[in-house]
Amino acid sequence: MERNILLTIRYDGTPFSGWQRQPNRPTVQGEIERALSVLCAASVHIHGTSRTDAGVHALGQRASFAGTFRIPTENLRRALNNLLPDSICVTSAEEKPLSFHARYDSRGKQYLYQIVNSREKDPFRRNFYYFVETELNLPAMRKAAEYLVGTHDFRCFQAAGGEERETTVRTIYDLEILAEERRSWEEHRAGREIYIRVSGDGFLYHMVRNIVGTLVEIGRGKRKPEEMAEILRSKDRRTAGPTAPACGLYLAEVYYETAEGGTYGY
Amino acid sequence: MERNILLTIRYDGTPFSGWQRQPNRPTVQGEIERALSVLCAASVHIHGTSRTDAGVHALGQRASFAGTFRIPTENLRRALNNLLPDSICVTSAEEKPLSFHARYDSRGKQYLYQIVNSREKDPFRRNFYYFVETELNLPAMRKAAEYLVGTHDFRCFQAAGGEERETTVRTIYDLEILAEERRSWEEHRAGREIYIRVSGDGFLYHMVRNIVGTLVEIGRGKRKPEEMAEILRSKDRRTAGPTAPACGLYLAEVYYETAEGGTYGY
Repeated sequence: MERNILLTIRYDGTPFSGWQRQPNRPTVQGEIERALSVLCAASVHIHGTSRTDAGVHALGQRASFAGTFRIPTENLRRALNNLLPDSICVTSAEEKPLSFHARYDSRGKQYLYQIVNSREKDPFRRNFYYFVETELNLPAMRKAAEYLVGTHDFRCFQAAGGEERETTVRTIYDLEILAEERRSWEEHRAGREIYIRVSGDGFLYHMVRNIVGTLVEIGRGKRKPEEMAEILRSKDRRTAGPTAPACGLYLAEVYYETAEGGTYGY
Repeated sequence: MERNILLTIRYDGTPFSGWQRQPNRPTVQGEIERALSVLCAASVHIHGTSRTDAGVHALGQRASFAGTFRIPTENLRRALNNLLPDSICVTSAEEKPLSFHARYDSRGKQYLYQIVNSREKDPFRRNFYYFVETELNLPAMRKAAEYLVGTHDFRCFQAAGGEERETTVRTIYDLEILAEERRSWEEHRAGREIYIRVSGDGFLYHMVRNIVGTLVEIGRGKRKPEEMAEILRSKDRRTAGPTAPACGLYLAEVYYETAEGGTYGY
């Protein structure tokens, strides 16, 4: 009997040319499809929620696929992890109705962006954080972030090269900037970690990285927090800041509609 | 005028075939010598304290080199870091007497070994921890570790393939096993981190990894803590446990004699 399976996937994006399958390049989708095809003894195609770019990580990517295969759903996670490289880990595999699609049925996502604010680079964090040497003004960044929450036309943060979208209007549910506060800047040679969590109903191509790049310019004092309102109004990519590096970005969570009609991560 | 410089170096060993220079392979020594040769406009050879193996990391490797060159010592650290790959960071560069040698003058070292005790692999920690799925009995491991502290013949922990040593007697100053205690084993799906810190006057080839491999067998309940005494007495490599993976090992600190005659890290 045909089954439809939803996977939750965690991966270190460093060794991959992104999520999407490409001939002769290591991709996350390619690795998972190869492992599934072995397990299911048939060619399997999966539908990921988000086509993360090269170097971007995931804590909770989702992907679904339907098919008829012998392996019981409850054994799938472990069997897949045995076949996958250590850089990819399936954290759950669950059965969904046949009509379910990981991408089309998603109601939003949460991204995490990690920054280390430090005078010294750290070899062990180089692939997982954006290093910023200048001390960042977090209250200014938080003030600027307030302009972004809600429903806006985010065209100014859309990079060229993504898919054509019908509209560039999106809703940001929440944008939080968290940081270790226990040490003074002078004690920060080892690096203060700053976490930017942003959730919304959808994101344009490079939108999170362009928002972070703009927030960092404000944190550096190059721009005032109030300029964020003008940047949004301009609808012009050239008014916003640079694209923050891929290595700091994590697809943290995907939201689906619950039976009760709410939209939460499962 | 000739100067003798001591560097302190932090590196992620993952992309390297170890410390020691080798033709046509990326090594930490090779990268630092290449950067120094550019800065000093001459071929520079450095003497590292420890020839760490492929995949082994360092928080405080030391290396010295002597020569006549223009760049002031106080600018060396920053200039080197600008030329080095992000996987290597020079954390200090200081002038020493001309007779000083980073390796021959060292009075001991401290190593750190990182374990994650978890039922699930973590893609983000794969290159930096040894993953152990079975719950480890830390009190048993600590009891076994007590047998190792002090002056002993550690021949049973020496791997074949290292340099010839005059004696296999070494002194372990301290061996600590630290762990996060705040969560129960049932809550440990995300992984409990265990840190083994060992300091001594010197270490045989693979000695730390062989000690850790033996401690983990004891922690798994395969052997009793008291067997550690017999293993030491046997002086036979075959009685000890397996070699723990390179990726969990960090050269943490190198000790030198202080002006007051003590032996501490600078």
